[in-house]
Amino acid sequence: MNITDEEKKAVYKTIYNRRDTRGEFKSDDIDDEVISRILDAAHHAPSVGFMQPWDFVVVKNKEVKEKIKDGFQVAHDEAKEMFDDTRKDVYKTLKLEGITEAPIGICITCDRSRTGDVVIGRTANMEMDLYSSVCAVQTLWLAARAENLGVGWVSIIHHDTLKEVLNIPEHIVPIAYLCIGKVDFFHDKPELEKAGWLPRLPLEQLVHYDSWENKK
Amino acid sequence: MNITDEEKKAVYKTIYNRRDTRGEFKSDDIDDEVISRILDAAHHAPSVGFMQPWDFVVVKNKEVKEKIKDGFQVAHDEAKEMFDDTRKDVYKTLKLEGITEAPIGICITCDRSRTGDVVIGRTANMEMDLYSSVCAVQTLWLAARAENLGVGWVSIIHHDTLKEVLNIPEHIVPIAYLCIGKVDFFHDKPELEKAGWLPRLPLEQLVHYDSWENKK
Repeated sequence: MNITDEEKKAVYKTIYNRRDTRGEFKSDDIDDEVISRILDAAHHAPSVGFMQPWDFVVVKNKEVKEKIKDGFQVAHDEAKEMFDDTRKDVYKTLKLEGITEAPIGICITCDRSRTGDVVIGRTANMEMDLYSSVCAVQTLWLAARAENLGVGWVSIIHHDTLKEVLNIPEHIVPIAYLCIGKVDFFHDKPELEKAGWLPRLPLEQLVHYDSWENKK
Repeated sequence: MNITDEEKKAVYKTIYNRRDTRGEFKSDDIDDEVISRILDAAHHAPSVGFMQPWDFVVVKNKEVKEKIKDGFQVAHDEAKEMFDDTRKDVYKTLKLEGITEAPIGICITCDRSRTGDVVIGRTANMEMDLYSSVCAVQTLWLAARAENLGVGWVSIIHHDTLKEVLNIPEHIVPIAYLCIGKVDFFHDKPELEKAGWLPRLPLEQLVHYDSWENKK
């Protein structure tokens, strides 16, 4: 199946305009069809040994979102104390999640025992199934961006909290909790770049040739 | 920035036609411009706290590829012994990498200390930077597919071997070694699905609503 030049441009446009959305969510509902499309796209991510280790918990219930938000608050309060004084002041001003504002949340997990103990491609690197679920996250994120939906990854929450709130079984590993919704706008650059927290690194600084010490 | 319906279709087409390429690589060179484009796309993956923890080691040298291939062979021989007898016979027939056939390899890594000890969004979940580098892998994979290039993730290799062969510093974590090149064709389905190793799971089996026990 050939991808045309126009189609290629669309893929790059989507990659470059994907953002981590926190403050721009609108409360408008998302059509179930759209949710199904982005979930099905995620389900077509690569997986080690075709294991498809992911599950998706779609959260629409207000009380459930509020419990997730409480869990964020606990981890956020802990985090504040970890930064030095200058960074702490900036950190406190940042909007880092849109859990209750976004119409839906999706928790993506990894079932490490889904296809038995021995998995093709996981034999030397046991983390490969976790990485497969991360590939599903990024695939869902790009599909959602193509639907003009914002996605925000809430990583400031203890995974035990996610398991408790969403009744996730003991043997299942939460990978990501994503907030998803229509947005007022997409930022033109990552917010932490705009806020001067960190600059975008020059690509050439990160590329090596045949051996780590060889750069152009 | 609005994504049009046509552009959305292009993104889905790319997601659904992405494959893990092993046996279909052509030896044709890839233009440096194309390599730069897919690397720059990967560099625009999401990263925790805008950490951009990735590096990219681009491998073109034949001797380096052969050492990587030797590393695969060691891990592959170990893996063979892990499957039960029925699976072992099938496992042995599978083509699982195209290291020396593909014109380039790219090792994607994670520098866990890149921006200091405390990273926004990594405070409750220390694995978040590893996951950022995995997002870079999947972004590169989709960009490469949009360029009609095949990508194969070689996970059957010990990461210490990658570090040794590519002179990767001790504190850097290898995430993926990818083989990349033009291809004779893309399979219409994942090869392990075609080979009857495992079926595609029905999506509805994997989707839960508000709580793990609620399915439609």
